[in-house]
Amino acid sequence: MADVWQSSMDHAVAVARKAGEMVRGALKDDRTVMTKSSAVDLVTQTDQKVEQLIIQSVKEKFPTHRFIGEESVAAGESCNLTDDPTWIIDPIDGTTNFVHAFPFVAVSIGFSVNKQVEFGVVYSCLEDKMFTARRGRGAFCNGEPLQVSEQTDIHQAIVATEFGSSRDPTAVDHIFRSLRNILCLPVHGVRGAGTAAINMCLVASGCAEAYYEIGIHVWDVAAGSLIVSEAGGVLLDVDGGDVDLMSRRIVAANNRTIAERIVKEIESFTLQRDDAPLQS
Amino acid sequence: MADVWQSSMDHAVAVARKAGEMVRGALKDDRTVMTKSSAVDLVTQTDQKVEQLIIQSVKEKFPTHRFIGEESVAAGESCNLTDDPTWIIDPIDGTTNFVHAFPFVAVSIGFSVNKQVEFGVVYSCLEDKMFTARRGRGAFCNGEPLQVSEQTDIHQAIVATEFGSSRDPTAVDHIFRSLRNILCLPVHGVRGAGTAAINMCLVASGCAEAYYEIGIHVWDVAAGSLIVSEAGGVLLDVDGGDVDLMSRRIVAANNRTIAERIVKEIESFTLQRDDAPLQS
Repeated sequence: MADVWQSSMDHAVAVARKAGEMVRGALKDDRTVMTKSSAVDLVTQTDQKVEQLIIQSVKEKFPTHRFIGEESVAAGESCNLTDDPTWIIDPIDGTTNFVHAFPFVAVSIGFSVNKQVEFGVVYSCLEDKMFTARRGRGAFCNGEPLQVSEQTDIHQAIVATEFGSSRDPTAVDHIFRSLRNILCLPVHGVRGAGTAAINMCLVASGCAEAYYEIGIHVWDVAAGSLIVSEAGGVLLDVDGGDVDLMSRRIVAANNRTIAERIVKEIESFTLQRDDAPLQS
Repeated sequence: MADVWQSSMDHAVAVARKAGEMVRGALKDDRTVMTKSSAVDLVTQTDQKVEQLIIQSVKEKFPTHRFIGEESVAAGESCNLTDDPTWIIDPIDGTTNFVHAFPFVAVSIGFSVNKQVEFGVVYSCLEDKMFTARRGRGAFCNGEPLQVSEQTDIHQAIVATEFGSSRDPTAVDHIFRSLRNILCLPVHGVRGAGTAAINMCLVASGCAEAYYEIGIHVWDVAAGSLIVSEAGGVLLDVDGGDVDLMSRRIVAANNRTIAERIVKEIESFTLQRDDAPLQS
């Protein structure tokens, strides 16, 4: 079974690069904005075109594989992870950044079999950084091995997080209280690239000790979660249990000490799961 | 008088690039951390070495010019802006990022005559972007002209800010309430690069509509303020009056409409000015 998924991974890297070219090209002339779940949950035609590019190219090469794509789900397709080989795609992670040409925009492709992520590809296309990980074989950026930070002292940590696109007052209360708790531990600083995938790559690269967020979706974190764990990091749920990529909550950290310290400060809350039955 | 400061500006660009090389080199082997005003106000030997490199090279070429340098002031030198030609230097803006190899680190050099900034140079040395502005002659990144965003709708804006290095509970209260007010207007998003100078260059580049912060110092914003205004943006105090670079407060925005809308949401507070008399 050693190399059974290698050709899929090679294809993922190639199509992520092609998708990134499309994103860079569209930065100049195609950033017309539509909204989804809220006035600040943005989508562009480029998101949709890039997702179609990826799905079509995979379908031609691997006709039996399944898909969970951000824009396909937004269009009404189901978001159930089965045991089948499944491509989990965020065509533009950081759409708001893309709309503003803010320099962190990623194409994120995770690939799951038996509900386990086998490889992850995150292409930070404005930085031209290709992050990759294959289960059991390490994580890389442009071919160089990645290693998380060795820091175990939370007071020396950089923590990444995001406000997300919900402006529900109760959710915002939780988000602000958690953030304040963490900032005032104190930590060295709080940062947010504006994309979950790149935040996780920053953890994998050792530039941030931890990233946490409530509100993300499986397509934001499927690839990044493997990149973090293959770089030596750990993943937890925000309550400290096992991570569940469908639960819309995640803590990704350089080690368990930092992850558990972050968990203590998070005021968690629950959102509708990505795999909740569709409303009819 | 047309080109009287051009040779100084040419020197600033050259020495900023040399300083940036030193910063990039030190990323690999010289990130031992000391602290200044608080446990999260960091400084490294590299900050001090880079500042000395810049000051020495300027002294050789322009022996009558004066200096305000972050690390010189930390070492006890005065921070008074006179009418004399004065180099206002932050050797590493984003020291916390530098310590963590987080990808936004800048060398910032402003140059003031008669208390007015004549040119500003911000070298984002990990991105290799050289931002420059000369009063009355526009702002540039790697030679390409910069132009702020044309957005006038705050709901379509990206706003940059930072938590800074104070963890004083009252200041943190004000900072969090202001941030929440702005987030929930709503705006498209809140970002922070971890350096004032680069946040201001993001405004000048049109990637963010506004940046505001209470707690910055004159060396963080002297160069960036001219880059914003020469890219077509505006500067205000957080209370809406004229900006005062010694007051440790700033709003930099793409236009007055956005700036004034931000001002309305900021719970301002006052810090000891940069030019306050030294305690004896």
